[in-house]
Amino acid sequence: MTREQLYEQIQKKNSCLCIGLDTDLNKIPKHLGGSTDPIFEFNKQIIDTTHQYCVAYKPNVAFYEALGPKGWESLQRTLSYIPKDIFTIADAKRGDIGNTSALYARAFFEQMNFDSITVAPYMGEDSVKPFLRDDKWVILLAHTSNSGSGDFQTMEIALTGKPLYEEVILRSQQWATADQLMYVVGATHPDKIKSIRTLAPEHFFLVPGVGAQGGDLDMIMKHGMNHQCGLLINAARSIIYASSEKDFAQRAAKEASKLQQQMKTHLNT
Amino acid sequence: MTREQLYEQIQKKNSCLCIGLDTDLNKIPKHLGGSTDPIFEFNKQIIDTTHQYCVAYKPNVAFYEALGPKGWESLQRTLSYIPKDIFTIADAKRGDIGNTSALYARAFFEQMNFDSITVAPYMGEDSVKPFLRDDKWVILLAHTSNSGSGDFQTMEIALTGKPLYEEVILRSQQWATADQLMYVVGATHPDKIKSIRTLAPEHFFLVPGVGAQGGDLDMIMKHGMNHQCGLLINAARSIIYASSEKDFAQRAAKEASKLQQQMKTHLNT
Repeated sequence: MTREQLYEQIQKKNSCLCIGLDTDLNKIPKHLGGSTDPIFEFNKQIIDTTHQYCVAYKPNVAFYEALGPKGWESLQRTLSYIPKDIFTIADAKRGDIGNTSALYARAFFEQMNFDSITVAPYMGEDSVKPFLRDDKWVILLAHTSNSGSGDFQTMEIALTGKPLYEEVILRSQQWATADQLMYVVGATHPDKIKSIRTLAPEHFFLVPGVGAQGGDLDMIMKHGMNHQCGLLINAARSIIYASSEKDFAQRAAKEASKLQQQMKTHLNT
Repeated sequence: MTREQLYEQIQKKNSCLCIGLDTDLNKIPKHLGGSTDPIFEFNKQIIDTTHQYCVAYKPNVAFYEALGPKGWESLQRTLSYIPKDIFTIADAKRGDIGNTSALYARAFFEQMNFDSITVAPYMGEDSVKPFLRDDKWVILLAHTSNSGSGDFQTMEIALTGKPLYEEVILRSQQWATADQLMYVVGATHPDKIKSIRTLAPEHFFLVPGVGAQGGDLDMIMKHGMNHQCGLLINAARSIIYASSEKDFAQRAAKEASKLQQQMKTHLNT
């Protein structure tokens, strides 16, 4: 999916919502336990009721990997079920030496047909480049939403006086264009989003941390949007686990719709 | 496996060799193509002929993941086949927010029974801690062997004047002891190994980059060893792909034996 196609979807749906499919066997409603693939059955029903409110789905790969080979089958099944006009993100946070990153790219872009993958920057250029393809996206970790993001990402670099995450954003722009590269910018740092936007005016940001992690949606949209919206805002737990009863998919739709309505206000101003 | 047990194995075998099982369907001998699980069959024969020369095996998870659910089955089969007195490393370079890292830990320590996993430090403390357990090891990326290791890892931090990888080594020692934590230190930086050893005198280092990547084994051992050896030196391609014919396992043993002999000289001085 190209940047223009993604922006078209955002306009059409008045939404920049990404729904995180962090699907956990211990958290899904008990009545799904009897189906042959409860993880897929849960995702399927969530997708059925929420797809009109979101422009992206982001399965968190760890949740599937923790189940062994069966988990990978649930993931593939889920990916195949997602409507083709919705952007898909493998939240895998991979990154390794060149020949190894090339194999991770094969796993997520060929074995499975994801539109994008999240990648960790610590190993530098040759760990990121093998993921770059014309029709696919790298979503590079810049300033993440967790508490540990203050350990190394905000360290000031002597040569430039900038925090490490800004160096990641600036340097990686030499490796790829805004048509191939997005950044992870946590919603838990709403005060930073304005300055990060000046560093990467054209790029899309994947923004996790709204919902269960407490990030401020309005602040993020007010200071983070660009002329093509430029944001994919992720919520997972607050949507998919809104209820643990038989009405889980309807309740998920209600939560997704609330966020979409909030987004619509910003997108129309 | 405890640090003492690992050191016992090193003494017993006069070796600190780790063999990387970077097993690629396109590179294994053609005659294995007929077996039901060619990847496992290749690994099995490599393990049969090389286990006496090494103290650790390190499957590179990307190679298995690129094959889909079947790849995970080959990986599990391989892990079960490795003799119990040999240390096992899931070279997976994972790392995510706390609840997600906990699931990766479940994948590699419970779904599979690896002794250790490689972890990327970019997301900080809460991305690393869920991997810490009494009987398991985190192997944290410090200064990796690839060319991109010069992009961010060597950036000088303003507050301390130290490169980022030294900050990773120093700060992470507040999170875990030398009985739970090792560091990845690439063999392609032999000039750095001495100063890195002074920062972490007790810790084991996993040292990739000897062999196909050109690292200097003698230099690494001379300047990197501590009183318990403190090194696991990895070679992959130069051993497992020493021959692409029917004699591949014997040729692998020969290459492993050569490295073990070289290691023995250093371990006995």
